[in-house]
Amino acid sequence: MAQTVVALDIGGTKTAAALVTAEGAVTDVTTAPTPGDQGPEAIVRVASGLAADLLVTATARGHEVVGLGVGSAGVIDTATGRVVSATEVLRDWAGTEVRDALSELSGIRHVVVDNDVHAHALGETWLGAASGASSAFFVAVGTGIGASVVIDGTVWHGRRDVAGHFGHVAVPHAGGMPCVCGGSGHLEAVAAGPAMVWSYNRRARADLTSLADVARRADAGDRLAVMTIDIGARALGSAIGGAANLLDPEVVVIGGGVPGIGARWWEPMEEAVRAELLPPLAELPVLPARLGSAAALVGAARLVWKGLA
Amino acid sequence: MAQTVVALDIGGTKTAAALVTAEGAVTDVTTAPTPGDQGPEAIVRVASGLAADLLVTATARGHEVVGLGVGSAGVIDTATGRVVSATEVLRDWAGTEVRDALSELSGIRHVVVDNDVHAHALGETWLGAASGASSAFFVAVGTGIGASVVIDGTVWHGRRDVAGHFGHVAVPHAGGMPCVCGGSGHLEAVAAGPAMVWSYNRRARADLTSLADVARRADAGDRLAVMTIDIGARALGSAIGGAANLLDPEVVVIGGGVPGIGARWWEPMEEAVRAELLPPLAELPVLPARLGSAAALVGAARLVWKGLA
Repeated sequence: MAQTVVALDIGGTKTAAALVTAEGAVTDVTTAPTPGDQGPEAIVRVASGLAADLLVTATARGHEVVGLGVGSAGVIDTATGRVVSATEVLRDWAGTEVRDALSELSGIRHVVVDNDVHAHALGETWLGAASGASSAFFVAVGTGIGASVVIDGTVWHGRRDVAGHFGHVAVPHAGGMPCVCGGSGHLEAVAAGPAMVWSYNRRARADLTSLADVARRADAGDRLAVMTIDIGARALGSAIGGAANLLDPEVVVIGGGVPGIGARWWEPMEEAVRAELLPPLAELPVLPARLGSAAALVGAARLVWKGLA
Repeated sequence: MAQTVVALDIGGTKTAAALVTAEGAVTDVTTAPTPGDQGPEAIVRVASGLAADLLVTATARGHEVVGLGVGSAGVIDTATGRVVSATEVLRDWAGTEVRDALSELSGIRHVVVDNDVHAHALGETWLGAASGASSAFFVAVGTGIGASVVIDGTVWHGRRDVAGHFGHVAVPHAGGMPCVCGGSGHLEAVAAGPAMVWSYNRRARADLTSLADVARRADAGDRLAVMTIDIGARALGSAIGGAANLLDPEVVVIGGGVPGIGARWWEPMEEAVRAELLPPLAELPVLPARLGSAAALVGAARLVWKGLA
């Protein structure tokens, strides 16, 4: 009997689900709004509903579902599938026993849960931009800035499953700027999407609400918008370059929503990476993520397939 | 027959050698000045001479020397034991086939070579401050600033054996300051020993030549000296905190010569680490290295013993 995996990507605004084969082929993608403000029971109910539907779909085709792989926002205790901590985008998400709840509600007994940025990184490492690389430093830059160090196909989680918090390093460009973590002067406070919108609004006395709006102003020749994007990009690039000197990954892969701005962001970002690199790293590939929104689903499925290999 | 390992630590000014048992007991430590300005042949000759003497010592005791473990300044290709790059403290050291040369000259066939900071880290992880920890972030702060990420008793070398270059990350305190790597604004340019001496001299229009002199002035109440040490310590601590958020090691261990200044340096350094840490890392141990100058010898020997295990 052909085997398949159900994959879930529980994000701040949207929950996605799909079937993913052992080769990484993604089919039957469905999505639903994440009821983030309604608390963990509602969030889990929506996610398990999507998973249960896919279990039916797969079974009707005569395929065996061997497990459910889950990428979720928040710090995840990967041994127990419990949320250690999370931002309030998902209300009261911290403490939720995601693995056990989904196992009970979805009809799929074998459930593996990891953080969504790690799942994203695992997808890109398996079948995306870092495919074939022995190690990768993956950076997701969007609402926040997360990262993942993947070594020989395995995410480095650290001792407390906290590894990957790349947004909270002190950087030269962010002096004094308040960070969502409570600290200040951190990378996320200058280079994340909302940080760039906030910086632009402050500089231009504007009240734009999205980075796409700032990018449009930059395209129209607004010098403050150009500068804001440039500073954010360079702050991130400089930090990535420093991390690459420390970690020496085979490749760097950058995903998340912010790179969608295009060359106006990517070029200064990559220039700033390369300005920091030590000579033996001069040829370090700095690549855009390739799997788009499917990456976390692919990586979440990989969690299950790896465990069965 | 009892087995032992000969360990070598080839540093910028001094080469040390010792016998190290499988349990890490260090005996028969000898040292000689490293003839750094005389080029690779002379450097290797001194090192192999120390090793050959210890081979005789061990053999005379009826012990079998199972290998030679070497920690050396410079980036080392660990697969071949060749120096990839090095500063000019060891003239023309880059390109030297350290493993093959020592194997030929010392009489000890099995030779393993690694970077000296990595050897230091491995020693501290095996039997020092990080003993028993599943992962450690080791930082050596002296003439330069190096680091080592040790996971399950193995150093992470990166794809090009460059991993550990922690001195070359852009930090808020070092804006514009020239770095030995040719870049500027890097951690090493503000927090390494010579950087603090240079900063003090510039601020105080002095011409001290050692950090110990700066520390003595600080002890005597010189406010510029106090401030210089404080800034260097905080720059390092802040960068360590950011790296800990990214890597989530079980422990952080700090070695090298600079911590020898004492509490005047350690306290602001640790305070700056803790100011950066995310809440789940609040209890992260930040520990002084414990093995002192023997650490690199212990770690170099460990390279051999690990390979035999």
